[in-house]
Amino acid sequence: MKDTICAISTPSGLGAIAVIRNSGAQAFTTVEPLFPETDIISLPPQRAQFAQIIENGQLIDQVVVTKFAAPHSYTGEDMVEISCHGSVFIQQKIMEMLLANGCRMAHAGEFTQRAFLNGKMDLPQAEAVADLIESQSESAHRLAINQLKGAFSKKLHQLREQLVCLASLLELELDFSEEEVEFADRKELLELLEELQTEVEHLIRSFKMGNVLKTGIPVAIVGQPNVGKSTLLNAILQHDRAIVSPVPGTTRDTVEDTFNIGGTLFRFIDTAGIRQSDDVVESIGIERTYQAIEKAAVILYMVDATQAEPHEIQTEVEDFKAHINLAEQQLLIIANKIDQLETMPEHYKELHDMDILFVSAKRQVNLGDIEERLTQYTHEHAIQDSTLLTNERHYALLTDMQNAIGRIRQGLEDQIPTDLLAEEVRAALYDIGCLTGTISTDELLDNIFGKFCIGK
Amino acid sequence: MKDTICAISTPSGLGAIAVIRNSGAQAFTTVEPLFPETDIISLPPQRAQFAQIIENGQLIDQVVVTKFAAPHSYTGEDMVEISCHGSVFIQQKIMEMLLANGCRMAHAGEFTQRAFLNGKMDLPQAEAVADLIESQSESAHRLAINQLKGAFSKKLHQLREQLVCLASLLELELDFSEEEVEFADRKELLELLEELQTEVEHLIRSFKMGNVLKTGIPVAIVGQPNVGKSTLLNAILQHDRAIVSPVPGTTRDTVEDTFNIGGTLFRFIDTAGIRQSDDVVESIGIERTYQAIEKAAVILYMVDATQAEPHEIQTEVEDFKAHINLAEQQLLIIANKIDQLETMPEHYKELHDMDILFVSAKRQVNLGDIEERLTQYTHEHAIQDSTLLTNERHYALLTDMQNAIGRIRQGLEDQIPTDLLAEEVRAALYDIGCLTGTISTDELLDNIFGKFCIGK
Repeated sequence: MKDTICAISTPSGLGAIAVIRNSGAQAFTTVEPLFPETDIISLPPQRAQFAQIIENGQLIDQVVVTKFAAPHSYTGEDMVEISCHGSVFIQQKIMEMLLANGCRMAHAGEFTQRAFLNGKMDLPQAEAVADLIESQSESAHRLAINQLKGAFSKKLHQLREQLVCLASLLELELDFSEEEVEFADRKELLELLEELQTEVEHLIRSFKMGNVLKTGIPVAIVGQPNVGKSTLLNAILQHDRAIVSPVPGTTRDTVEDTFNIGGTLFRFIDTAGIRQSDDVVESIGIERTYQAIEKAAVILYMVDATQAEPHEIQTEVEDFKAHINLAEQQLLIIANKIDQLETMPEHYKELHDMDILFVSAKRQVNLGDIEERLTQYTHEHAIQDSTLLTNERHYALLTDMQNAIGRIRQGLEDQIPTDLLAEEVRAALYDIGCLTGTISTDELLDNIFGKFCIGK
Repeated sequence: MKDTICAISTPSGLGAIAVIRNSGAQAFTTVEPLFPETDIISLPPQRAQFAQIIENGQLIDQVVVTKFAAPHSYTGEDMVEISCHGSVFIQQKIMEMLLANGCRMAHAGEFTQRAFLNGKMDLPQAEAVADLIESQSESAHRLAINQLKGAFSKKLHQLREQLVCLASLLELELDFSEEEVEFADRKELLELLEELQTEVEHLIRSFKMGNVLKTGIPVAIVGQPNVGKSTLLNAILQHDRAIVSPVPGTTRDTVEDTFNIGGTLFRFIDTAGIRQSDDVVESIGIERTYQAIEKAAVILYMVDATQAEPHEIQTEVEDFKAHINLAEQQLLIIANKIDQLETMPEHYKELHDMDILFVSAKRQVNLGDIEERLTQYTHEHAIQDSTLLTNERHYALLTDMQNAIGRIRQGLEDQIPTDLLAEEVRAALYDIGCLTGTISTDELLDNIFGKFCIGK
């Protein structure tokens, strides 16, 4: 923490302007020599000052320099931001000059790590900064910004208070244990535990959704060979992502890409057509189709409207449903190639009950219906909601905590000694401490901030 | 100019932070609605203020916002800079909000164009901004920064004053022409003209060097097949750019790449080996070798030290020299493969007079000698010097002007009427006006600023 660190904070490469910043006790004095014509030390904080960077009498660049004085900065330390011309050469030159003056290159996420260590934010908020930068859709952005604002931290704080309350009830009993008095109201304890368990479970359950919102809700496009799965993928993505040919079995590897629909990122996965095949490569492809189905949130099951009679479609779909476990997935049936039907045959109306979407992927007919159903899915699953778990680390710690709570409940029922129960409560409190960052190790911090980009 | 423009000014893509800026009469009022909690209008100029961007009650981002009040800004207009988290989603979102408030997307270079139109810089200075951003080496950077500082503009200003002086001498004569008095001192006129001509010629001659400094000084690597040209290219570039094989004639297309030596960018061109060949493709390659030699500033002529006796080398080099026009190019003879010589044969010492560099491209022996000679070349050609012409437009206009001056000189000698001479002087003054931008058309400005990056 004693080092003064520096980094290029804007995206790498050439641009109109670039921003280089440093942070640390020597932030001002390491920048000062770059500006022989400007009195950096007397410059008031937060004043954006036009200034010239000069080396050995040679002008390096005309820039805007801004000081931020501790603790009123992002890191909580003294900081300087230099907004220079976005030439790669100038960016490197300024970095070289700062390094020569005693700054050291910042590690990934080190500015935010210092903000955390200086108490400007807790750990989930710091983690939200990385999520925020990586957010590609409105939903992902909203999750990250809520976490940055402290919604998740507040939730954790509440859980912690409930645990402390639980602990004090148990400790009280413990104090009087020699007198063999069962002091704590066991009913109150159980109620508290149930409440905790419900909330933790709710958070844990939200992980699947929170996580897929970051990477895109997985939508598997499946069906028999040649029903137009790759054509549909390309039509939704609006570019030729998957190879399309009239030969059944063209797609072997799963092909995927993301697309933003109504502010939510979806990840569409085009799969190999499902059929009996002797071709080894195709068989592997079909196996992967089933894996994709398992991991999907939504399955678009496609049939060829020109090839199948209504009862056949019905049988095929029932058959498909019987083969897979649809516990968690939403299934949408899509009849493709309606552009090749002269008029919609009368008897297809029977299928109305089956809730089938009739489309033409090739002619891009009714694709809006699919998008509408996907948007509806996000609404039904309350994806617009606030606190969803999005982070693997949080998930693991909360699962740990849930197990501890489960053991406490069981222990109460089994009437195991209070001091053993108190130990489990302490374990759960430890988990919360790790979550918020009041308990942290260098290794943990390296893990978290190592995933940040340089300069943040 | 009445529009308020906005753009993302940092390189595109994801980064720790991004900077979005706008400029124009409505710069402050179009930004104001983004910050319902911050009094943007009352914010003092040049104060970097932490603030929250909020849309419909939803936090979009926590940013630093800085106002610049006309004329104390880059463009000379009111400007606002928003330094936000570098998420692509956030960058787009803020742009959308600004556009919704009445800003319009800036064209390429439009900020700098406004700076020019508002008299913050002249045209060569504005052009230097684009060169500065694209500069990849110390030399290119220095040329651009000198031009930005106004070194070239000052030169043009001097030329203009000399032309005005010339014009007034001629006009004086013109006023009295009816009295048939030859008023102006013709000797003084001729001296002035000579001085002008020398300076313009000097600038025009500097173009070749100025221009190659931007794109890299061209260094052609030539020689017979299999002497190790591609190996040398790869060794200098320090990566496997060209395919190397023991088969003579491996290289057909010229292969080139740039490398920075001592702060100057060199562009190395590996060529097809020179020999008689019936292979059509190889013959085309050899033709290209000769083209590369013509365009090169430095030629590295390679011979195989293990294959040739000293007198053979001497003959080969003399033969090569006889076939090409070495008026402007520097020739360096390089004897390769010295790693395969047991000891340097005594008789090679004869070659000492020929100034041959003995190297091993494969084992990277003595390559520093080549780099030293190239650095020496840049010093000899005063590349570290200040005002070099780097811009095609400037080159064309100065050539135009040089022709006009030539015609004036000739006219004076031929004693053509003074009013015709005065017209040529006005033509030369027009060229200077176009150079500095006091005379400019929309088309010219579109051409110049259209090559800038967006956001500058």
